[in-house]
Amino acid sequence: MLKNSTAQSQSRLQSILWQGSTLHLLDQRRLPLVTEYVVCDTADAVAEAIQEMVVRGAPAIGVAAAFGLVLAAQQGENLEEKATLLKAARPTAVNLMWAVDTMLQTPVSDWEKKAFALYDSDVLVNKAIGEQAQSLIPENATVIHHCNTGSLATVDYGTALGVIRIAHERGKNIHAILDETRPRLQGARLSAYECQAFGIPHTVIVDGAAPWVMRTRQVDCCIVGCDRVAANGDVANKIGTYALALAAKAHNVPFYVACPLSTLDLATPNGEAIEIEERSTKEITHIQGQLICPENTPVFNPAFDITPAALISAIITETGIITPPYADNLKALKSQGL
Amino acid sequence: MLKNSTAQSQSRLQSILWQGSTLHLLDQRRLPLVTEYVVCDTADAVAEAIQEMVVRGAPAIGVAAAFGLVLAAQQGENLEEKATLLKAARPTAVNLMWAVDTMLQTPVSDWEKKAFALYDSDVLVNKAIGEQAQSLIPENATVIHHCNTGSLATVDYGTALGVIRIAHERGKNIHAILDETRPRLQGARLSAYECQAFGIPHTVIVDGAAPWVMRTRQVDCCIVGCDRVAANGDVANKIGTYALALAAKAHNVPFYVACPLSTLDLATPNGEAIEIEERSTKEITHIQGQLICPENTPVFNPAFDITPAALISAIITETGIITPPYADNLKALKSQGL
Repeated sequence: MLKNSTAQSQSRLQSILWQGSTLHLLDQRRLPLVTEYVVCDTADAVAEAIQEMVVRGAPAIGVAAAFGLVLAAQQGENLEEKATLLKAARPTAVNLMWAVDTMLQTPVSDWEKKAFALYDSDVLVNKAIGEQAQSLIPENATVIHHCNTGSLATVDYGTALGVIRIAHERGKNIHAILDETRPRLQGARLSAYECQAFGIPHTVIVDGAAPWVMRTRQVDCCIVGCDRVAANGDVANKIGTYALALAAKAHNVPFYVACPLSTLDLATPNGEAIEIEERSTKEITHIQGQLICPENTPVFNPAFDITPAALISAIITETGIITPPYADNLKALKSQGL
Repeated sequence: MLKNSTAQSQSRLQSILWQGSTLHLLDQRRLPLVTEYVVCDTADAVAEAIQEMVVRGAPAIGVAAAFGLVLAAQQGENLEEKATLLKAARPTAVNLMWAVDTMLQTPVSDWEKKAFALYDSDVLVNKAIGEQAQSLIPENATVIHHCNTGSLATVDYGTALGVIRIAHERGKNIHAILDETRPRLQGARLSAYECQAFGIPHTVIVDGAAPWVMRTRQVDCCIVGCDRVAANGDVANKIGTYALALAAKAHNVPFYVACPLSTLDLATPNGEAIEIEERSTKEITHIQGQLICPENTPVFNPAFDITPAALISAIITETGIITPPYADNLKALKSQGL
């Protein structure tokens, strides 16, 4: 059972707050209309918050799960069982499994420190991704962005939206075209909220309009985050990413993926081996609790899709920009000690 | 000012009812949750109903405008002025201009008869489109459909959805994958409602999922309606159609456009010459009256896009199936007396 907090965060955009024996998660289901934190005092509550998408975004759910393990240790729970529970909360983003495994390789006495290290590291990693990407972002760029990949999807700064934010901070006159990103509207709700907060010029469009924007306006690139990169460079990301990548290819618009190295999963050979989560039909049939279609309408609701490596111009990480051939270049990165 | 009717239609799916001195239009903004007719007793009210999308769908708005002219004549209004008003209610669908021009070429004393003729003809034309298309629809077909093109978008039967309906009536075991079609959700609201009413197996998806469905499941074709076909075969249709056509091309899935001959506009050389209506930002920022994104979020909301002829496998009309090269074959059709 998730509890609501009256605690106020210092920043409106702080997705994760650790309070020593409780984890406060900004409720992203209700943003931007309501700013409220959900308080988790057990690993079970953290797993539920991840599952229910109180907290979302591959990097953010990894860090949340790490603090979930700290709670389990504080309460003397079965740690292996809670680790399994947390890893199973959502199947597609590999950062979740990576963060839990990283914790399990650390002595339990150091878990709180390690969770904080993951927390702090995420901010630095995101800023580094943003810096690495700047060579790809021209002055006066118009960029199409899908879903939310900003401060809310991470500890802070963000991956793809972090790239846009840094370009804006450098005075690049960047304009973000934000796919609204059905069904959960993370673009219209969360990315628009972040762009507004940071003063980044932006325009929201329906997902189906992105190709038309590419055809009729100058679009310099598309940039998205991701939930898992397979060994061959195939990328799992929010449903609709593949559609955007196909359109980018058709218009010769570069298509960039921004993610931390922890999103690379070289143990997964290709996109077909990635489990794609299917979520509740209500995400499509209801909007803000209101039914929008006939009762009992059959729905197919995959939360993610796979964009094949061939459609991806580059993968931007904190240590550098990876270009095709991905199979070789990802393997080389691994041999350098990833 | 639009008035609501307590009048009941015989069929839940009858979009247009002429009552002798009033036109009753099924309010498609509120379906499927509320079934209510808007009563129009002036041409101005009909124009407003078209503009506000009480009635929508290229064939339906053409017939509604014809009855709008009948109301203007009954009330002794300036007919030229009202014809101009009705034609300007929405800029993209050429059927509206065609229907008004057809009325203007008819003696005013025959207008009511002529409007009924257009009304009756639309049903026959749609059934003929559905028949013509059957050679393209295999047994056990899975078909992706965009927007709403059924009984509600026409007088009855529909264009693209009419093709699916006839295939279903013939026992073809057809399954319709319905794009929800943001921003106005005509797929989730109206096409799902029609499929449910007629017992056609269907599944609603978000627009961004269509390419993923093509990649992971057997999809036999895409079929859409349209608002205008230019002389070179470029097609204006609901925003998101171009995205679907690009994905179909990438997956070698045939992409069909179903429309009456009245949708062919050989006076317009190509898609670039078609005016694309931009509608209220509220269609994106609000769903069922509720704000979903931050206040004052900038939005770009084109109601239509252009699908270039090169992406279209065939255009299905009541007299036959037109295939590339469209410029020549549309011209030949015209010389046969369109």
